[in-house]
Amino acid sequence: MAEQKSDNITWHSGQIDRNDRERLVGQRGVTVWLTGLSGSGKSTVAVAAEAELTRRGHLSYVLDGDNVRHGLNSNLGFSPEDRTENIRRIGEVSKLFTEAGVIVFTSFISPYRADRDAVRELMPKGDFVEVFVDASLETCEGRDVKGLYKKARAGEIPEFTGISAPYEAPAKPELVVDTGNQSIQQSVEQVVDHLEKKGYLSAPAAE
Amino acid sequence: MAEQKSDNITWHSGQIDRNDRERLVGQRGVTVWLTGLSGSGKSTVAVAAEAELTRRGHLSYVLDGDNVRHGLNSNLGFSPEDRTENIRRIGEVSKLFTEAGVIVFTSFISPYRADRDAVRELMPKGDFVEVFVDASLETCEGRDVKGLYKKARAGEIPEFTGISAPYEAPAKPELVVDTGNQSIQQSVEQVVDHLEKKGYLSAPAAE
Repeated sequence: MAEQKSDNITWHSGQIDRNDRERLVGQRGVTVWLTGLSGSGKSTVAVAAEAELTRRGHLSYVLDGDNVRHGLNSNLGFSPEDRTENIRRIGEVSKLFTEAGVIVFTSFISPYRADRDAVRELMPKGDFVEVFVDASLETCEGRDVKGLYKKARAGEIPEFTGISAPYEAPAKPELVVDTGNQSIQQSVEQVVDHLEKKGYLSAPAAE
Repeated sequence: MAEQKSDNITWHSGQIDRNDRERLVGQRGVTVWLTGLSGSGKSTVAVAAEAELTRRGHLSYVLDGDNVRHGLNSNLGFSPEDRTENIRRIGEVSKLFTEAGVIVFTSFISPYRADRDAVRELMPKGDFVEVFVDASLETCEGRDVKGLYKKARAGEIPEFTGISAPYEAPAKPELVVDTGNQSIQQSVEQVVDHLEKKGYLSAPAAE
């Protein structure tokens, strides 16, 4: 951050910026946007990647249904407009975390390419890392950890992604993790290795 | 954070929590909610406190009109409902930052006690520090840095806080900074000293 040379500083001009925060925490802020079917392993990968990054001394945070749907987006339903607004708000919040210097994982199905691309457009190039958590519908439905696919097949959940509503896979994601054919640990290593290789786990150079 | 004792960890059970993040960054997450009239010095104090905390090695972030009104809350206007929703969303985002272990300053007039109290209620006790940035209407109008009071007096801005809309001062704020009668530096010291005295600038004890 800018040196404080005297006690007579003009406080407002001494304001710090994103680079100062990033140097403080020794990393770059980034939004790691996990997208994939229900049951594909988004949250498992996000939570495990958060743990691995913490172990390595990096500050990360997971935005997911638990902390967003019941909070910021508690006044949104599941209409097409509300789904788009849901993703938009998550994108804006991710942008704020990214500017704060935090590595933020988002774990939402986010089935529509246009919604995800709109989030990408919110941010400077490089701040948005789209990760396609790729497991086939058969695999996800076979797991059906929450019993949602069964309910969707029974018509109890309308517009369920993969069953009665489309999932649009990313055209050019930064990363694909094939959770259908590899372990969670392998997927986490892929994500963390990508972040390391691309420089997100290092502080920006001093000015 | 929890020790990783082997490579054969069950990733999901190895998830980390707020305490782990707070120990990593050596501080406690907290929302420092600055409220006061337009021109009272909220943003100046917030930005200067952020700089001072950064100098001391603490990660903080300022939410203000610049990064929120044009982003997350760009689809809100100035109706009573939209003003309430504006503050609600800022409160929810602050809560997320607080859970992430960040010291977040919010710099919004937030004139209604009910709206601020609703934000306080969102959070565990101790996570919300209300700071009344107290300068008289005369002082703020005398400064009129942005020329807004002049426009408000001319009737060009409807429902302007202090002129044509009420400002409800906090009944029991954690802190009052009298920016009308002391320097910005003194106000910043008051805020940072409060955070230090209350333990927010230290990591929670290891479990």
